[in-house]
Amino acid sequence: MPHIVKSFDAELRRLEEGLARMGGLAETQLAAAIEALENRDSDLAARVMHDDSRVDAGESFINEQTVKVLALRAPVADDLRTVVAALKVSGEIERIADLAANAAKRSLVLNQLPPVAPMRSLIRLGRLALELVKDVLDSYLSHDAERALSLRERDQELDDVYSALFREILTYMMEDPRTITPCSHLMFIAKNLERIGDHATNIAELAYYRVTGKTVAEERTKKDVSSFIGADLS
Amino acid sequence: MPHIVKSFDAELRRLEEGLARMGGLAETQLAAAIEALENRDSDLAARVMHDDSRVDAGESFINEQTVKVLALRAPVADDLRTVVAALKVSGEIERIADLAANAAKRSLVLNQLPPVAPMRSLIRLGRLALELVKDVLDSYLSHDAERALSLRERDQELDDVYSALFREILTYMMEDPRTITPCSHLMFIAKNLERIGDHATNIAELAYYRVTGKTVAEERTKKDVSSFIGADLS
Repeated sequence: MPHIVKSFDAELRRLEEGLARMGGLAETQLAAAIEALENRDSDLAARVMHDDSRVDAGESFINEQTVKVLALRAPVADDLRTVVAALKVSGEIERIADLAANAAKRSLVLNQLPPVAPMRSLIRLGRLALELVKDVLDSYLSHDAERALSLRERDQELDDVYSALFREILTYMMEDPRTITPCSHLMFIAKNLERIGDHATNIAELAYYRVTGKTVAEERTKKDVSSFIGADLS
Repeated sequence: MPHIVKSFDAELRRLEEGLARMGGLAETQLAAAIEALENRDSDLAARVMHDDSRVDAGESFINEQTVKVLALRAPVADDLRTVVAALKVSGEIERIADLAANAAKRSLVLNQLPPVAPMRSLIRLGRLALELVKDVLDSYLSHDAERALSLRERDQELDDVYSALFREILTYMMEDPRTITPCSHLMFIAKNLERIGDHATNIAELAYYRVTGKTVAEERTKKDVSSFIGADLS
């Protein structure tokens, strides 16, 4: 039944295109949130917050499409993995965009306060997170399981930069308690960026699963050092 | 073919029992994390961190079970929704437990520092989050769509308590900069608890979807006020 097969392929392609569009949107949102922070651009930040609903709509589309494909086509093997992975990846992308929108929201507060020095390191962290998101989405959409797996190391790098930044912000607050308010927001934005790295890693693992059918057994060693530091600083 | 039908029911029941077990485990983890914070109990905190892998194993079980059911049974209608919802709910429960484990990890640092007053409010926030998680899981497992929907309001209450606590911690840090380090960890734990409320709300929405087949159209108005406050405090 070539007609049915063809139509099934078209549905899977639609799902994949939906993910690609959603991923591109999340990338744009994250890039804009970082730009808004760097340039203290409240208009841009407001646009990021507003556009978050477009990513949510993308997730709803993927959810509906996957349930439709599952119900009407009952896919198996590779195709089933593609559909199940799409369902999970859309959730991860939605969270990445959500964290970007939250960073934009906090930048509105920061723009009403004097600039603080650790912002430079925060922007660097943001760029690292953005690169990772881009590369992970590329590897997912190009079915490159090996590349996806190798990208997980970059999340470790992101965690290390985050931990150093957390220390930097803490020191800065203690040296000048008038910066406590802006620095608190910086801390949360930094944490958001670190978590974007975690979601990117989840996508990398789903890319691997989708292609190979295997889950990543090796437990990723999380070294979020910031939870452990600080005791000697107070 | 009664045999096949019966076996299918048994598989769905296994999925449901897996979710119930996983949910119970996450509740226990969260309760223990709060207790560890309240009693400055580092042994208990270490146990919470260690047991997080049990929740991860629960998620892997649910993932494998759902893919198996989808591949072998090709469920439709109610049954398909049950399977798709299980896949998503297990992800939400995993994140709740993960946030509880992170709170436990931070309590190890706090136990090396002098106690700070806002801990009392933090414990209150933790208890609210725990109650919400319990009630949401109950409503999911008992297929109570109306109750699940009504619980979303409790997340708003949690957000309000979180915002007040954020303000309290900020003020406390400014009055006594020596408390900046412990207070920073308190802020992150508070944020974790607030996010646990968001995941509970996601489960409530999945409970509604599973029973009714409808997604919650009405966009939940998020009032995470803490992102907007602080400008007048520095």
